[in-house]
Amino acid sequence: MLRILISGMVLFTMTNMIQAADQVVADVVLGIHGGIGVDKKEMTPELDKEVRAGLKSALEAGHAKLKAGGSSLDAVEAAIRVMEDLPVFNAGKGAVFTNAGTNELDASIMEGKTKKAGAMAGVMTVKNPISGARAVMEKSKHVLLIGKGADSFAKQQGLEIVDPSYFATEPRRKAIEEIWKREEEAKKKRSDAESLQPELPKKKSEYGTVGAVSLDGMGNLAAGTSTGGMTNKMAGRVGDSPIIGAGTYADNDAAAISCTGHGEFFIRYAVSHEIVSQMKYKGLSGAAASDDVINKQLKNAGGEGAAIVLDRAGKFVTAYNSEGLYRGCITKDGTVQIKIYEE
Amino acid sequence: MLRILISGMVLFTMTNMIQAADQVVADVVLGIHGGIGVDKKEMTPELDKEVRAGLKSALEAGHAKLKAGGSSLDAVEAAIRVMEDLPVFNAGKGAVFTNAGTNELDASIMEGKTKKAGAMAGVMTVKNPISGARAVMEKSKHVLLIGKGADSFAKQQGLEIVDPSYFATEPRRKAIEEIWKREEEAKKKRSDAESLQPELPKKKSEYGTVGAVSLDGMGNLAAGTSTGGMTNKMAGRVGDSPIIGAGTYADNDAAAISCTGHGEFFIRYAVSHEIVSQMKYKGLSGAAASDDVINKQLKNAGGEGAAIVLDRAGKFVTAYNSEGLYRGCITKDGTVQIKIYEE
Repeated sequence: MLRILISGMVLFTMTNMIQAADQVVADVVLGIHGGIGVDKKEMTPELDKEVRAGLKSALEAGHAKLKAGGSSLDAVEAAIRVMEDLPVFNAGKGAVFTNAGTNELDASIMEGKTKKAGAMAGVMTVKNPISGARAVMEKSKHVLLIGKGADSFAKQQGLEIVDPSYFATEPRRKAIEEIWKREEEAKKKRSDAESLQPELPKKKSEYGTVGAVSLDGMGNLAAGTSTGGMTNKMAGRVGDSPIIGAGTYADNDAAAISCTGHGEFFIRYAVSHEIVSQMKYKGLSGAAASDDVINKQLKNAGGEGAAIVLDRAGKFVTAYNSEGLYRGCITKDGTVQIKIYEE
Repeated sequence: MLRILISGMVLFTMTNMIQAADQVVADVVLGIHGGIGVDKKEMTPELDKEVRAGLKSALEAGHAKLKAGGSSLDAVEAAIRVMEDLPVFNAGKGAVFTNAGTNELDASIMEGKTKKAGAMAGVMTVKNPISGARAVMEKSKHVLLIGKGADSFAKQQGLEIVDPSYFATEPRRKAIEEIWKREEEAKKKRSDAESLQPELPKKKSEYGTVGAVSLDGMGNLAAGTSTGGMTNKMAGRVGDSPIIGAGTYADNDAAAISCTGHGEFFIRYAVSHEIVSQMKYKGLSGAAASDDVINKQLKNAGGEGAAIVLDRAGKFVTAYNSEGLYRGCITKDGTVQIKIYEE
């Protein structure tokens, strides 16, 4: 177990941080992740099955778009929408709760050819935040919209709007209630209880994310990421998912990237843009660049997480320093690969 | 005049885009900017004097911190606080108005040694958003807080809270009212008036920013940026100023950077992190890297703006593709240099 002390404060406590990367898969047109998953000891056969089935349907939805002549952007959006709709992933329906008892969603999308991008943060009524992000990119003059302004924009654009309660699920509610109970106990024991800040999640499933990267027949890359954020996050906290350069980046000269993990570290290290930069300016492969950033820079700093990388030649790699990563990819001819741990 | 067409929509209309950089200044301990200023034809002797005096007091406030043994972070915060308090700059008091008639403020700060960072976006009651950003960095487990959650956190941390009306000034109100009047006229002439989006500002002064970069006696770099955003921005729109890697970045292995300009482009090109990356991985100087990003990449994309860069050896450079840039620097021995246009 590793404890990182900065300014005398325990920023993050980690167990089981590893150093891993899959072998490169060639001819990939769509790669996805569904967050760094759960500790092996918490995995059940039912959950394993549910996750793999969810990843498979997301891959198939994106692949269908590409087969029909859609763009990489279409594939990314379609794959992420499937995962947003599935409660097993921490994005859209099934998002974790904030410390204010709300579900606040973030997403971003970017295309590698034009470097156009769009993002939403802290939305509470947009059924599919990834489509909201795409609307910001294509229909507004802005890149990032937050809060009520973002919700209003999505409504004005005719996107599907839901009641905030749509996102809440029983297991996520139970998770936040357990944390609140522990916090109450802790407060009783402290004289300076007022200054206590929300407890950070201990389970990996409490700061999941979903993401996708795609390469289309025109040779254009795209990337997207969507999340409910971190369980018990302070209301208003934004992680890396809606931040272009942190959770998401796409550049036709290098790769499309989507990240998941402890978002604060991914912002500080500008992880997705750092991988692109090492590919462009150090001449590294996606595998070498993501290994350096995830398994050296982030690991040394104590930042747990993962990145999926699809380069302009269709080579797909994943790097993760967590025990596992829900992930999958599909090749042009429809061959699917899905993994959770090192396997 | 250059018009950029993407998806059939005029994203930005520019006049007077130039390509400029000052000569490198050595032994700098603090560099600042106050936004890309105003067109020469709008400049008056009074405004010129007010801007130069404001920049000078900001430099002196930061320098005093360093002389007293303060850190580069202290100097950055002190210099930016001065500019936030001066209505002539678009940050803190004197911030521009959103299309909802509110003043919504963004800021970020980062230190190069630890790569710790903090940011706030869309706050409406924090008198000095740069101090709010520093509190997020030092007192929370998060990097970016937005909206009401950010305002509450600042209050809880004992920062100075003001009524939202504190930020409003007569000239900024006049500017937004003129835009609204034009929008009303435009709506009358359109059948699809409902779908009209807020007009983008035409004057440079309507999307200003302030920022600072510093190097202290311990060899540590820091950078910070603060803004009221873009006049008539859609409520909820966030630009590059609070985005680590876009408007602000600091890395002791390369440089501290603060940017200003048309924020959407700075996010898409991850400008501050891109400059750091070119310095680290291509071995470029701060001057060469910022020239490539501001005067080639951004200029080609139609993104108007500027970056100030202070490297770990104390070399200070500015690159801007706008007609001017309010800027200044101070050396260890207290020598001050202040400029507005190419001079």
